[in-house]
Amino acid sequence: MRYAAVVDVMPKEGIADPQGQTIEKALPALGYGGVAEIRVGKRIELQLEAAGPDEARERVLEMCERLLANPVIEVYEVTIR
Amino acid sequence: MRYAAVVDVMPKEGIADPQGQTIEKALPALGYGGVAEIRVGKRIELQLEAAGPDEARERVLEMCERLLANPVIEVYEVTIR
Repeated sequence: MRYAAVVDVMPKEGIADPQGQTIEKALPALGYGGVAEIRVGKRIELQLEAAGPDEARERVLEMCERLLANPVIEVYEVTIR
Repeated sequence: MRYAAVVDVMPKEGIADPQGQTIEKALPALGYGGVAEIRVGKRIELQLEAAGPDEARERVLEMCERLLANPVIEVYEVTIR
């Protein structure tokens, strides 16, 4: 069967996030105050063939470890639909 | 009150997605076949002060139009918690 997967990859807490810092500095200049703790990560959507949702999740988790994320500095979350 | 917002920004359909294409080529070489339609976008998490959830959503949607996304080539979705 074909499954849709969403992978959310975010920088780990404590890891520098230059994109987030840049946005955090830019927003007040545009008139948006009161915004804090901005973190920027990746969202990856894909379709995959698998025998069932558990197999689909396991394969996507493996892909995260090997290619989609950097487990040293990023955390990831997989949603299968 | 303080709200947490998640912004998912994805390339519009038909817009080239070089990151997605690169991953799609790399996966079979790593032994992961049967994966298709890979799209890579951004996930932005932030905290903001607002009077209520509707105001929070409206402000984040405005930030998307002005800074967080490029509405010409990207679609975005805002979730307020």
